[in-house]
Amino acid sequence: MLEAAKQQDFDSVKTNNNSNSSSNHDESHHRHHQGQSASSSAETVSPSANPSSPVKVEVLEEGSTKSSSYDLAHFEPVRILSNNSTHKSVSLLGHFANLSRDDFSIIVLEKTAFTEAQLRNTTSSESESKHSSTTTAEADTEAERSIFSTKSHLRTEFINDIYGNFLCVTDPEVNQLKVTIVYPATEKHISKYSAHARYLVEETADDYQSVTLPHLEQEQLSLEWLYNILEHRKEKDRIVYEDPSDKVGFILLPDLKWDGKTLEQLYLLALVRPKGIKSLRDLTAAHLPLLRNIKEGGTKAIKERYGIDSDHLRVYLHYQPSFYHLHVHFTYLKHDPPGIHCEKSHLLTTIIENLELVPDYYQRVTLSCVLGENDKLYAKLKAAKEVNQDAEDQPKAKRTKIE
Amino acid sequence: MLEAAKQQDFDSVKTNNNSNSSSNHDESHHRHHQGQSASSSAETVSPSANPSSPVKVEVLEEGSTKSSSYDLAHFEPVRILSNNSTHKSVSLLGHFANLSRDDFSIIVLEKTAFTEAQLRNTTSSESESKHSSTTTAEADTEAERSIFSTKSHLRTEFINDIYGNFLCVTDPEVNQLKVTIVYPATEKHISKYSAHARYLVEETADDYQSVTLPHLEQEQLSLEWLYNILEHRKEKDRIVYEDPSDKVGFILLPDLKWDGKTLEQLYLLALVRPKGIKSLRDLTAAHLPLLRNIKEGGTKAIKERYGIDSDHLRVYLHYQPSFYHLHVHFTYLKHDPPGIHCEKSHLLTTIIENLELVPDYYQRVTLSCVLGENDKLYAKLKAAKEVNQDAEDQPKAKRTKIE
Repeated sequence: MLEAAKQQDFDSVKTNNNSNSSSNHDESHHRHHQGQSASSSAETVSPSANPSSPVKVEVLEEGSTKSSSYDLAHFEPVRILSNNSTHKSVSLLGHFANLSRDDFSIIVLEKTAFTEAQLRNTTSSESESKHSSTTTAEADTEAERSIFSTKSHLRTEFINDIYGNFLCVTDPEVNQLKVTIVYPATEKHISKYSAHARYLVEETADDYQSVTLPHLEQEQLSLEWLYNILEHRKEKDRIVYEDPSDKVGFILLPDLKWDGKTLEQLYLLALVRPKGIKSLRDLTAAHLPLLRNIKEGGTKAIKERYGIDSDHLRVYLHYQPSFYHLHVHFTYLKHDPPGIHCEKSHLLTTIIENLELVPDYYQRVTLSCVLGENDKLYAKLKAAKEVNQDAEDQPKAKRTKIE
Repeated sequence: MLEAAKQQDFDSVKTNNNSNSSSNHDESHHRHHQGQSASSSAETVSPSANPSSPVKVEVLEEGSTKSSSYDLAHFEPVRILSNNSTHKSVSLLGHFANLSRDDFSIIVLEKTAFTEAQLRNTTSSESESKHSSTTTAEADTEAERSIFSTKSHLRTEFINDIYGNFLCVTDPEVNQLKVTIVYPATEKHISKYSAHARYLVEETADDYQSVTLPHLEQEQLSLEWLYNILEHRKEKDRIVYEDPSDKVGFILLPDLKWDGKTLEQLYLLALVRPKGIKSLRDLTAAHLPLLRNIKEGGTKAIKERYGIDSDHLRVYLHYQPSFYHLHVHFTYLKHDPPGIHCEKSHLLTTIIENLELVPDYYQRVTLSCVLGENDKLYAKLKAAKEVNQDAEDQPKAKRTKIE
């Protein structure tokens, strides 16, 4: 892959995925800390929260690379790895020509969210007058600057009646980019930051038994980290609520993606105490007491600890999950974390309803799930379907013709 | 509301919704054209696609308002109406002090997505040298400028091993904002651009019969626009595919949110030919031939017309829908349009599975849906639930204690 990448020059800069792909965002609750995962994060860095004086840059630098050598004017893009027009973020592969033409670097650029301070009018205030000179990069960033200043200039696209559309050139200080640089980047980094094609797969009950289940048994990652939590060996101080019952108990704790503080992004996980329930597919009516206990106990604990009512919560399971020990996601309804789309997530309420109606519902139905092109399970399910397709071609053609 | 708004000054600028609210985005397929709906749109205006020379501003202006009077330095914010940190867009209420202190204006600011042209390195090219002077607002915007130029300056947040985090001050020309101004803004505009609290409501089968159905019968909007389509009186040239059967037929055409061209944002709607099927709640096993026909005919038509395979499509229904004549959404899996979250959308495959297992599934189960605080249906369902809650308090307390 590195070789292939090297053969392209920047004239062939191409987006692998130019749309509002969720592929960078529909990710995984792997418990492994993964360097910088800016591309799968909705967090933004507020300039005011992290005032960084350019004078201090040299002092802050660590490691073998001099931060001063990262000069964007020397960056030569090779390929756009992903471009998310919803989140306004992009990942690029390229070289810093002043550093090395053999080593690759990945640059992730992300537009920052608006902060309240940037939305005040400071035109007449002291802080504005301090900044009224036109020096740019070296300007003082201690006092946050406003969009509503004499440094903002509107360009009219059109005005129709009371509606007007414009483009605005702003004070560059109030409109900075968040930048992540990985250098030198390995093939693994390139794959991690690239948009991968994803497919919707309809996994029948037979597919699960003959393909998915054997795959899981072969490939399942260690759940040691999870058993450490259940047995209080690790992360004990992160537990928000615990029901110790062996049958219907669970541990509720903040998901790794959540800082545990910013209420607007509330995200907790309930890990069930019983072992051996791999996913949705294993659930039967026998698990109804466990599921109801998680729903009621989890929402009650969140109300007590964070003051958020149950009708502000989205309580759901993933299929396929990122690890195969049953766990339930609790997120704030007004927060949009990765993986809440209808092709991936199942409301706990719906699951309970299904099991009440049909005790073996999840052993019988076809479940849709989204898999990446380089997921081994995708290759296996696809191969199995192609065999079935060939065998069924005649009857299937008949079924297609309805009415 | 206007009065209340007037009593605040900009010191009390407050965000109604400071999180990644989907409330501005989880919206509606009303067929009424609605002025500018920038806040619910994921579209971005590329500066290169719409070159606007500042010299032409005066020529372009229309209507009674001079575009030159929209000077952001004179804008006095009163309140943040909504702030979406995922989409990096914000709506503000305020006054242009130079225009009027009685009339309100709404300003929507949105960060733009990265374009391919901005991601090329033009440092050594001719276009860069043309722009090397430090004049800002009046600069020539014809040739698109790059992030990778001597005008970009990195400020180090931290560097740890091969990973570095930075903030970047860029050439303001490559990092413009999209701006929408509504002036003068009425109360209706203020409500439209405001983030409204939304609640997850669990609608039982009884709730549907006793509250939702009577509400729909009272409040249903005219479906005349839809019958015009079904009977070929309007939008005939927009039809992508039609099955004329009275029982299992449907018309497939682009959703109003889609331009019909940008494949990455593909969004079509199938409107069923039979009248009187209001929503998911009306579906029974008797509708299986209709549902299967839509699934197979719709995906086949999309493959033929747009070359997109069925495993790249998300095919689903909304509950509650925005209009009560059964319709099915077809969107590109890698596109994230509004309303695809698990609390709102139901995959057609799942619906078919449910009806095959339980013929009257949708007349029996509790369905979750998200309603806005000022939705009349929300008030009615809430009131009904409070009555039930009082009646059931004793048994409910018992049920809560599981195990």
